Amino acid sequence: MNQPTLDVVAIGNAIVDVIAQADDAFLAEHALTKGAMQLVDADTADLLYDNMGAGLEVSGGSAANTLAGLAALGLKCGFIGQVADDQLGQVFAHDIRALGVTYTTDMANDGPPTARCLIMVTPDAQRTMNTFLGASQNLPAAALDPDVIRSANILYLEGYLWDPDEPRAAMRSAIAIAREAGRKVAFTLSDGFVIARHGDDFMDLINQGQIDILFSNEAEIQALAKVDGFEEAIAAIAPKVPLLISTRSEKGAVAVVNGVRHEVAAAPVTQVVDTTGAGDLFAAGFLAAHVEGKPVEECLKLGSIAAAEVISHYGARPEADLKALRAQAGL
Amino acid sequence: MNQPTLDVVAIGNAIVDVIAQADDAFLAEHALTKGAMQLVDADTADLLYDNMGAGLEVSGGSAANTLAGLAALGLKCGFIGQVADDQLGQVFAHDIRALGVTYTTDMANDGPPTARCLIMVTPDAQRTMNTFLGASQNLPAAALDPDVIRSANILYLEGYLWDPDEPRAAMRSAIAIAREAGRKVAFTLSDGFVIARHGDDFMDLINQGQIDILFSNEAEIQALAKVDGFEEAIAAIAPKVPLLISTRSEKGAVAVVNGVRHEVAAAPVTQVVDTTGAGDLFAAGFLAAHVEGKPVEECLKLGSIAAAEVISHYGARPEADLKALRAQAGL
Repeated sequence: MNQPTLDVVAIGNAIVDVIAQADDAFLAEHALTKGAMQLVDADTADLLYDNMGAGLEVSGGSAANTLAGLAALGLKCGFIGQVADDQLGQVFAHDIRALGVTYTTDMANDGPPTARCLIMVTPDAQRTMNTFLGASQNLPAAALDPDVIRSANILYLEGYLWDPDEPRAAMRSAIAIAREAGRKVAFTLSDGFVIARHGDDFMDLINQGQIDILFSNEAEIQALAKVDGFEEAIAAIAPKVPLLISTRSEKGAVAVVNGVRHEVAAAPVTQVVDTTGAGDLFAAGFLAAHVEGKPVEECLKLGSIAAAEVISHYGARPEADLKALRAQAGL
Repeated sequence: MNQPTLDVVAIGNAIVDVIAQADDAFLAEHALTKGAMQLVDADTADLLYDNMGAGLEVSGGSAANTLAGLAALGLKCGFIGQVADDQLGQVFAHDIRALGVTYTTDMANDGPPTARCLIMVTPDAQRTMNTFLGASQNLPAAALDPDVIRSANILYLEGYLWDPDEPRAAMRSAIAIAREAGRKVAFTLSDGFVIARHGDDFMDLINQGQIDILFSNEAEIQALAKVDGFEEAIAAIAPKVPLLISTRSEKGAVAVVNGVRHEVAAAPVTQVVDTTGAGDLFAAGFLAAHVEGKPVEECLKLGSIAAAEVISHYGARPEADLKALRAQAGL
């Protein structure tokens, strides 16, 4: 079997984020649930955009954000996800390639425009996301190059993209290819709404031993386990996956490796500005150290450092030099 | 004569900024002059974009940035400038309207795309700008509504837009309309390259008494006066305009009102991140207080507060609440 040439290949939504400040009254007026992600159609996206404040556009997408962090930490990465051939699609493609990530998925020449996520950031730094999936949800199964999947040490999958039919089929196929090639599969649960719709799928994958590394947050792991209480949820899921990670915002994060539990406190942040991307960058920091074979404590610490960086400014991609922050922390 | 219903109407470039971090080697490799603005054609813009780092998109344009600051400070404003009917054009139009600025210029349906400014920010926080003017430079004279010009207390003109023919004609016509209606005309010199090309035009306007308020920085005022030395330049130009303002970066700013000189120190900034928009926001703070009839010292102080806010983060539009910062400063 060939040695992997990429550290991580990810399949995820190819999205440009549009970030604006909003107050709680705006969320109430537009019936938005703080902290959640909802899918919106083109008309709702236009209506929300017309009403939201002046924005900041930054490339996003959960798995793509994680790759941005991994690439910043020096890992070799590839991304699979679809934009349309329009200005926002060019922005997304430019940004991910500028980070050194291999990205060769063709732009869609017809159909809906590039996905965008309208993000309202409230004064408490919480982000409330409204995603118009556009071209991203139509990622064709044909966009998967089996050689690229085989070429990566870890296949990283974004739960958000489990919802639309074609990408779900592509991801199932990617899991099979990766496992057959002896690669690891990492999966992030993404959000309560995908778990509500596809939690049984996810549990099937887990029970079948298809998932090596499972990323979650406190609410998601409880939704997946269908129990109330973080400890109960960890107790239910941890025995079924070799490596379970669950982030808990200001309470830090937990990893359970083959039954052994490790914890880390949240890294200090001078001012939390925008929590968008916290989980994505935690996954990046964790995986970067994990790929290097570091102990779990170090993986957790690097995850919390990367998450702390991304919540200190608007946008879900790192702005500061993550390698330098890692070195400062003596990791 | 009717009372003005707008405080400020501005004519300027309608641009989306694309901001990326770069090092000095990148500037050298691409023969870019640090701190300056250069116009680039579509091919050069594409080449630079392909080579620059991952970006952050934020609406920009010098006069439009000034209006963003004025609107944030509670003033009633209007903007005249042209985008194309594309995604970046929609971003620009959305953002300026979301600030409460009246913006009714039609989008161009053919011709080049919306203008973008590729901004490299070096670790010293200096910005180096490469502008593809696209649809912005084709602002037709017909886009000027004389009633809108007459409706504003102050007509604010961006020197950058003096370079292309059609907008220059539109601006000359706007000056005549404003003066006939008894309004004030404010002008910002923008950059050395426009002064090199049109400094004689600017001096003619000044000598003819067409300019009431002139904004400049240290380098620009010397270029206009064709002298070496800030004091020499101020001495040459101040007697010719009722109100001359010149910003001096960390050395603060100077205003000369009918021969009387006033100065202010730069407002403190915890960390200077990106100097893009410093002059634009200084003009906003100054004009906001000036329109309210405040003493020149207060105008200078509010200018320095607005400039300090905008250089503390990426992007040339204010992120913090300028009214709150003004109140905190007791102005």
